Amino acid sequence: MTGHVTCFGEVLLRLATPGHRLMVQSDSLDLVVGGAEANVAAGLASLGHEVKLVSRLPVGPLGDKARSAVAAAGVDTRHVSRAPGRMGLYFLESGAGLRPSSIIYDRAGSVFASSSPDDFDFAAALDGVRLLHLSGITPALGPEGCALAQAAVAAAQRAGVPICFDGNYRALLWDSWDSDPRRILTGLMQSAAIMIGNHRDISLLLGETFFGDGADRRREAADAAFEAFPGLQFIASTARHVVNAAHHRIAARVDSRDGAHQTAEVEVTGIVDRIGTGDAFAAGVLHRWLQGADIAAMAEAGLAYTVLKHS
Amino acid sequence: MTGHVTCFGEVLLRLATPGHRLMVQSDSLDLVVGGAEANVAAGLASLGHEVKLVSRLPVGPLGDKARSAVAAAGVDTRHVSRAPGRMGLYFLESGAGLRPSSIIYDRAGSVFASSSPDDFDFAAALDGVRLLHLSGITPALGPEGCALAQAAVAAAQRAGVPICFDGNYRALLWDSWDSDPRRILTGLMQSAAIMIGNHRDISLLLGETFFGDGADRRREAADAAFEAFPGLQFIASTARHVVNAAHHRIAARVDSRDGAHQTAEVEVTGIVDRIGTGDAFAAGVLHRWLQGADIAAMAEAGLAYTVLKHS
Amino acid sequence: MTGHVTCFGEVLLRLATPGHRLMVQSDSLDLVVGGAEANVAAGLASLGHEVKLVSRLPVGPLGDKARSAVAAAGVDTRHVSRAPGRMGLYFLESGAGLRPSSIIYDRAGSVFASSSPDDFDFAAALDGVRLLHLSGITPALGPEGCALAQAAVAAAQRAGVPICFDGNYRALLWDSWDSDPRRILTGLMQSAAIMIGNHRDISLLLGETFFGDGADRRREAADAAFEAFPGLQFIASTARHVVNAAHHRIAARVDSRDGAHQTAEVEVTGIVDRIGTGDAFAAGVLHRWLQGADIAAMAEAGLAYTVLKHS
Amino acid sequence: MTGHVTCFGEVLLRLATPGHRLMVQSDSLDLVVGGAEANVAAGLASLGHEVKLVSRLPVGPLGDKARSAVAAAGVDTRHVSRAPGRMGLYFLESGAGLRPSSIIYDRAGSVFASSSPDDFDFAAALDGVRLLHLSGITPALGPEGCALAQAAVAAAQRAGVPICFDGNYRALLWDSWDSDPRRILTGLMQSAAIMIGNHRDISLLLGETFFGDGADRRREAADAAFEAFPGLQFIASTARHVVNAAHHRIAARVDSRDGAHQTAEVEVTGIVDRIGTGDAFAAGVLHRWLQGADIAAMAEAGLAYTVLKHS
Amino acid sequence: MTGHVTCFGEVLLRLATPGHRLMVQSDSLDLVVGGAEANVAAGLASLGHEVKLVSRLPVGPLGDKARSAVAAAGVDTRHVSRAPGRMGLYFLESGAGLRPSSIIYDRAGSVFASSSPDDFDFAAALDGVRLLHLSGITPALGPEGCALAQAAVAAAQRAGVPICFDGNYRALLWDSWDSDPRRILTGLMQSAAIMIGNHRDISLLLGETFFGDGADRRREAADAAFEAFPGLQFIASTARHVVNAAHHRIAARVDSRDGAHQTAEVEVTGIVDRIGTGDAFAAGVLHRWLQGADIAAMAEAGLAYTVLKHS
Amino acid sequence: MTGHVTCFGEVLLRLATPGHRLMVQSDSLDLVVGGAEANVAAGLASLGHEVKLVSRLPVGPLGDKARSAVAAAGVDTRHVSRAPGRMGLYFLESGAGLRPSSIIYDRAGSVFASSSPDDFDFAAALDGVRLLHLSGITPALGPEGCALAQAAVAAAQRAGVPICFDGNYRALLWDSWDSDPRRILTGLMQSAAIMIGNHRDISLLLGETFFGDGADRRREAADAAFEAFPGLQFIASTARHVVNAAHHRIAARVDSRDGAHQTAEVEVTGIVDRIGTGDAFAAGVLHRWLQGADIAAMAEAGLAYTVLKHS
Ligand SMILES: Nc1ncnc2c1ncn2[C@@H]1O[C@H](COP(=O)(O)OP(=O)(O)O)[C@@H](O)[C@H]1O
Ligand SMILES: Nc1ncnc2c1ncn2[C@@H]1O[C@H](COP(=O)(O)OP(=O)(O)O)[C@@H](O)[C@H]1O
Ligand SMILES: Nc1ncnc2c1ncn2[C@@H]1O[C@H](COP(=O)(O)OP(=O)(O)O)[C@@H](O)[C@H]1O
Ligand SMILES: Nc1ncnc2c1ncn2[C@@H]1O[C@H](COP(=O)(O)OP(=O)(O)O)[C@@H](O)[C@H]1O
Ligand SMILES: Nc1ncnc2c1ncn2[C@@H]1O[C@H](COP(=O)(O)OP(=O)(O)O)[C@@H](O)[C@H]1O
Ligand SMILES: Nc1ncnc2c1ncn2[C@@H]1O[C@H](COP(=O)(O)OP(=O)(O)O)[C@@H](O)[C@H]1O
Repeated sequence: MTGHVTCFGEVLLRLATPGHRLMVQSDSLDLVVGGAEANVAAGLASLGHEVKLVSRLPVGPLGDKARSAVAAAGVDTRHVSRAPGRMGLYFLESGAGLRPSSIIYDRAGSVFASSSPDDFDFAAALDGVRLLHLSGITPALGPEGCALAQAAVAAAQRAGVPICFDGNYRALLWDSWDSDPRRILTGLMQSAAIMIGNHRDISLLLGETFFGDGADRRREAADAAFEAFPGLQFIASTARHVVNAAHHRIAARVDSRDGAHQTAEVEVTGIVDRIGTGDAFAAGVLHRWLQGADIAAMAEAGLAYTVLKHS
Repeated sequence: MTGHVTCFGEVLLRLATPGHRLMVQSDSLDLVVGGAEANVAAGLASLGHEVKLVSRLPVGPLGDKARSAVAAAGVDTRHVSRAPGRMGLYFLESGAGLRPSSIIYDRAGSVFASSSPDDFDFAAALDGVRLLHLSGITPALGPEGCALAQAAVAAAQRAGVPICFDGNYRALLWDSWDSDPRRILTGLMQSAAIMIGNHRDISLLLGETFFGDGADRRREAADAAFEAFPGLQFIASTARHVVNAAHHRIAARVDSRDGAHQTAEVEVTGIVDRIGTGDAFAAGVLHRWLQGADIAAMAEAGLAYTVLKHS
Repeated sequence: MTGHVTCFGEVLLRLATPGHRLMVQSDSLDLVVGGAEANVAAGLASLGHEVKLVSRLPVGPLGDKARSAVAAAGVDTRHVSRAPGRMGLYFLESGAGLRPSSIIYDRAGSVFASSSPDDFDFAAALDGVRLLHLSGITPALGPEGCALAQAAVAAAQRAGVPICFDGNYRALLWDSWDSDPRRILTGLMQSAAIMIGNHRDISLLLGETFFGDGADRRREAADAAFEAFPGLQFIASTARHVVNAAHHRIAARVDSRDGAHQTAEVEVTGIVDRIGTGDAFAAGVLHRWLQGADIAAMAEAGLAYTVLKHS
Repeated sequence: MTGHVTCFGEVLLRLATPGHRLMVQSDSLDLVVGGAEANVAAGLASLGHEVKLVSRLPVGPLGDKARSAVAAAGVDTRHVSRAPGRMGLYFLESGAGLRPSSIIYDRAGSVFASSSPDDFDFAAALDGVRLLHLSGITPALGPEGCALAQAAVAAAQRAGVPICFDGNYRALLWDSWDSDPRRILTGLMQSAAIMIGNHRDISLLLGETFFGDGADRRREAADAAFEAFPGLQFIASTARHVVNAAHHRIAARVDSRDGAHQTAEVEVTGIVDRIGTGDAFAAGVLHRWLQGADIAAMAEAGLAYTVLKHS
Repeated sequence: MTGHVTCFGEVLLRLATPGHRLMVQSDSLDLVVGGAEANVAAGLASLGHEVKLVSRLPVGPLGDKARSAVAAAGVDTRHVSRAPGRMGLYFLESGAGLRPSSIIYDRAGSVFASSSPDDFDFAAALDGVRLLHLSGITPALGPEGCALAQAAVAAAQRAGVPICFDGNYRALLWDSWDSDPRRILTGLMQSAAIMIGNHRDISLLLGETFFGDGADRRREAADAAFEAFPGLQFIASTARHVVNAAHHRIAARVDSRDGAHQTAEVEVTGIVDRIGTGDAFAAGVLHRWLQGADIAAMAEAGLAYTVLKHS
Repeated sequence: MTGHVTCFGEVLLRLATPGHRLMVQSDSLDLVVGGAEANVAAGLASLGHEVKLVSRLPVGPLGDKARSAVAAAGVDTRHVSRAPGRMGLYFLESGAGLRPSSIIYDRAGSVFASSSPDDFDFAAALDGVRLLHLSGITPALGPEGCALAQAAVAAAQRAGVPICFDGNYRALLWDSWDSDPRRILTGLMQSAAIMIGNHRDISLLLGETFFGDGADRRREAADAAFEAFPGLQFIASTARHVVNAAHHRIAARVDSRDGAHQTAEVEVTGIVDRIGTGDAFAAGVLHRWLQGADIAAMAEAGLAYTVLKHS
């Protein structure tokens, strides 16, 4: 067993049309439990780590379903509290051939998004833990979400637990309220040791554009981020070249303050489902980090898990 | 073809666990389009009437699904408008044996519930029509719902179209806002020619309790309603005696100002699903009313359709 | 809303083995409602046009199913009449990899194929309409089918409604009776304003072979058709280059009397199902024609919808 | 192994809505291979007898499916020949609660119904066999069907093979052509040693009505049949008292020339599917007859298998 | 949270034909994770207790599946170890109507049945725990199983943890090796504080027959057991009266040294599945015991959960 | 009809996760009946040959299922005997994209593997037959399996029936007991007229390594085999070049004593399932051999069937 991790974020239900059908053709919807941070938790648990999820779910059958699925993945759910309210949902009409997938979010006003820092015992959940993982989705949920993310980060700092922050920028969510994403996200990043995100995420954080090509631009962005965020040690990102809907080329990269490792590109064909591949990447990177491996091993493992997840 | 009817109300999506499973045991949910008024519309269409539904659905795949299902039932959907927003949902964990079904409503803030009378062209939708059907669910949705129901009723009165009002009292909905159901519902009932509802619904409307047994109590309640609502001509209700979850005894009754017809009780066994049986009753009653039949025929047809629907 | 269209033709039930199984491996068959003209009707309705289908279905559950599916697609079914008799069927054993699909038609003696012109009120169905769409399948059904197609065309001419005729040559059907397809089809084409069909369809109609390559041959054929059919204004066709079962290259072309537009080729990979792609092409072309667009727009839209339909 | 039997009759495909749905609610149909005589063959094979089916199926996937299902049941299919043509079908909308099942036959013009005696080698199929089983369905198919049944019976007589004839009166089939069922059926019965059928079947054959109650009427009818058909040795029938759709009481009876055995009534509840229960009865009766058992054993076994089949 | 429990026993996979089909009719089997002690663990977890399962599963996908399902039920699986070997299986052909279910065990030589006491850290698993639950199935597995059960019981005694022993007599298992069940089971019962089992189980343990009727016989048996097993405090049992396959009457009883509570009989109709009902009973009884409730509450809760489980 | 064949070997049940799911994600498993020799039997039957399978299955529902599936494929099952015991199983977690399939064998101690030569009547099963087909799987099962394979081969020699032996080397099986595969397999090969296997199989048999490239190495190996096994007339093998999981290039080759035919390579894309493709190859080769065709025809037919099977 190579490490104890706490993940914090919302658990969602995904309701997807089966077999690439349109919604109008579907008499049933496939029910899957998701959410970026829960996916990372599940990935790390399957790799042998002890992982706790901190979250909040509605009382009743939908919350039971979500809790049960997270536990089935081997994640400790004792810090998943329950309260009256609604479940965050998203509907997926899975694409086929040239027809793209269409996602309909229906998560506003969920129990998680309406909760306050007092609803969580971050100190207990971080006790004896080596890493806190959270993402840019939580603060994007609204003022309450910002308070939640900030409280989690503050608790980790108090407990001396390093933080991994996954950018996961969701424009739709930020645009749905009177938000200032740059201020909030750079605030949170002040405490991060690991960032999952590419040069576009960094541009967004710093309000700076990076030029140059490929590796150069990524390094330029990394240098800027390391300067802006003094605690930051690693930046992990993927680069995806879309040949067509079912055929991509993917590489991974991890930057540290004094170096970088960029993997060779891997061909991924017969792609069925991209959902959760970013989370698999994070899990792979953190898996090696928890084992004390170097940036090359982190990048390769991140790539390996993201590639596996495409199938 | 025996008549043109306009139904007004919200269309919902029902997401039900398949085969009497618990939510935690389900990897998919059956998707059915429902809603009390849409069910009545579908029932009347299947009986050969020309029926229009007036409603409002979200743009996007979920709204497409709902519109398509209503059209598939033979209902004219040209007065179902579309707007950005969320779809009204309800989740159903279908019971088995002694475990009761559990319903989770997730309809707050839907496109329909957030709309205003100006979003509908009631005059056009009532043109050339012989009946407007609506129910107590619409005003229960909130102040906007009350305004919608009142506008529909006012338009019908202006157009000289008789109104059928189905009580469908939903305590949960009325309790979720600062409501005064009696005032609202008695206001709407002032214009009703036909009421679907029993002595309990009348008690609720009039704030009066009725004593006596069975038929006597029902007649007492009917007399009180006919006195309170001068335009009211018919009251149709069912009486259900639950032997056990899968075995009921049901009778139907129609009261007019000068008489009543109560059917014999029918044994219903092997009950799978009670959802929509009240709507089937309304459809059966209205079917005969549209044909100009007498109260006995109305009661018998209502019973026949509600009994058929249990299977 | 950009136009009112009437489609005339048979609605069929397709019974297909699920998931690329062989018939001997299947314990259930997927049930889909099809038929070339109904497909075009559904396509145009989904693009926002008001579309009526004129057809005839058996009374009973199979006819109900077909009517309901057509209505679900947003098509007006008030001109779909009902009569005792059998439903037209076809069975599909869907191919996989190198094993081709196998289709078994079982449509002889259907209610539609046995009906006579008097069973339809073409005048009413064409009232206020801007286009009649029909295809070469109806006359291929037998002498009754020829009479039906001729009556529909005659009614459109009387009503001054332009006609679109989709070649859809079905050798199997023509060969099953003592038929003279050239005489019948050229007769019908006399009244057509739009033809969906390529140089092979024109060869068949005119008994003439066209030489030359690609675009040249198509123009040569188009010139011959414009000469032979004085009312003809547009000829729309696709050219398909089959790389392998799952990978085609497709282009579209529309010829007018004084010009032609041929699109670039599009790569289509991951092809699941070719059924209905010709109908999607027709719907795309007619969609733009109804909007008054030029031939380039017609060809591009036809291509776009046919390509989308492959997925 | 207690005996060799040859069954002769048509094999049909049943296409049934799944889970008690209506056809309009179904996106797939369950595919089952049936036909009364094939059911009896399968029943006898499952009881350990060597059974051959003589039949005729279309070439192609539908015929392959039917042949394969019969072989899977352990029946010898070497005498099932193949020819171009259509498969006999029937559609089933399975009932639920008070809604009855609805069956749509679509078997006219099938390969079997269009075949002639020369298409079968009855002599070979009856070689070394102890019983020929056929039913009243084959002659009901039309003049060709009558010729087939008569040829099978004649071949059995030439070969000295006893005949079991199952009445299976199908009014719909007889009424669809200019038929004289009494003449045909009494002709076939001249050669029967065993008849499966009750007093109503005998009335129909002899044009005679039987009075009296229960057992008395059955014996009266049996006496008349034994007089009319000199080779007849056993008459086996069931009596069914329908309490409600899901609850019947069933008894069985076998009459011989010098006695009768009538079983006690058995309660059958939770009835899902009545299809094939008559065939199971025949299989049970013949199973014991082949073993040389007495009429009591024949009646009890017939009852046992029919009761088991209801579940 | 009312208590910490440790359950010890084998986890099995159940492979059942879907929808009451026969195995020969099934193209897929439903996969459910079971095992008596795991069922009790899941039941107690769903009632809010902290429960650990001590077991052993094969490495690989089948063991992953089992572990995941137990965790999904909210049970702590950190004491479920893994080793190379096979998974215990049982196949179920679920009955219908009068056809009984048929179970095929295929558990011989499983990883659990082949393990030795050294493969488990009972001391750690019992640390801080208020109850150990095990059953008569483990010793029935063979000499290794006996050693396992004895080691578990010895560890509980050392740790001062009370023991609940569920009789669960499996003749088939005991008969498959040269066993002496009475000696083994009475040995284990020496340490039990709670026994789940009826007078027949006690007869079997003590080699004594009890006469008298109903409650009298049960008390007589209880007295004998309390005399034979000095640490025993409670005996919990159900009495089941089978009206027919789908209709039972069930009562529950708990005996203590100085009294007894027997519940009223409950009618259970529409029975789908009896599997696991005994385990639900045990969970209900232990739930109240852990809460410190009296025998009446224990019996009523046991009955309530067993009745619920039938549905 | 071009020939009578007897196949001898074990029939297994395959339990596979549906739709490329992981075992932990699956609530049901697809049930398919397999086994290399039964697959060859089914292939030859579908090509029109009369084929008998000699095997042994457990009594009970699992054995019934297996027997029924083999009979459904048109194979004569009268030499499939039945005995108490367990069914051979294998579980398949079907891969997706880059995740490989994972197979778990659970066949030890099956009825077949525990049987002895006396349990089979080889003489009767080989009567009038033109070929015996068996494979290297049977002797790999253990000493009993060796005795079975040897007895089958001896009986064929006594009856003058040529033998086809498919190498099908299963290291896992041979390694699970104290085996000497080379001695056993070369013993069996002494009697073979046809071998299905490539140069690696021959290396294994002869303890010799072959150098050179492609065709040269194959011929070198074939020459060595023809020298070692005096009765051997044909060696049939495939060569597979894996481009990626879903894209292979395959060629086939048949060597005779005086020549060889190697086919062109065929591209196989969209590969779903490789299981059984080796068996399809054997069936194609033997089909032409039974027709008396030359080695070119044998190789081409083998390739055609193996390619078809990939889909
Ligand atoms: N709005 C959202 N809120 C919470 N989780 C989301 C949201 N959208 C997607 N997800 C989850 O986040 C995961 C990662 O998404 P993303 O970072 O976009 O992946 P990728 O980098 O592979 O494209 C998805 O698996 C899904 O479960
Ligand atoms: N809150 C709701 N909003 C809208 N429709 C509802 C709601 N609850 C139930 N329904 C619909 O109303 C229908 C009738 O419900 P109800 O009147 O309670 O039936 P019954 O009288 O048979 O018990 C149901 O079929 C369902 O589709
Ligand atoms: N014999 C037929 N009768 C009626 N409709 C048919 C027949 N065969 C195919 N169809 C329908 O016609 C549609 C178009 O077929 P076709 O013109 O051959 O397409 P494409 O040009 O894409 O190959 C199909 O979707 C199917 O629904
Ligand atoms: N028209 C038909 N032609 C051929 N087989 C039929 C027909 N109708 C029903 N069957 C078959 O005959 C079997 C027996 O039907 P029937 O004698 O009416 O049964 P029962 O006596 O139980 O009511 C059914 O299982 C079905 O497979
Ligand atoms: N041989 C077995 N080994 C392990 N568990 C079993 C075995 N047989 C049944 N079970 C499990 O034991 C549970 C209880 O069975 P049992 O005590 O017979 O129940 P009941 O008292 O309700 O009849 C079942 O749910 C099943 O999961
Ligand atoms: N251990 C086994 N025992 C019996 N049959 C097996 C075993 N493993 C695979 N099979 C069967 O043997 C068939 C052929 O496998 P193999 O020779 O490896 O095929 P290929 O040459 O196409 O890779 C498979 O279809 C499967 O049914």
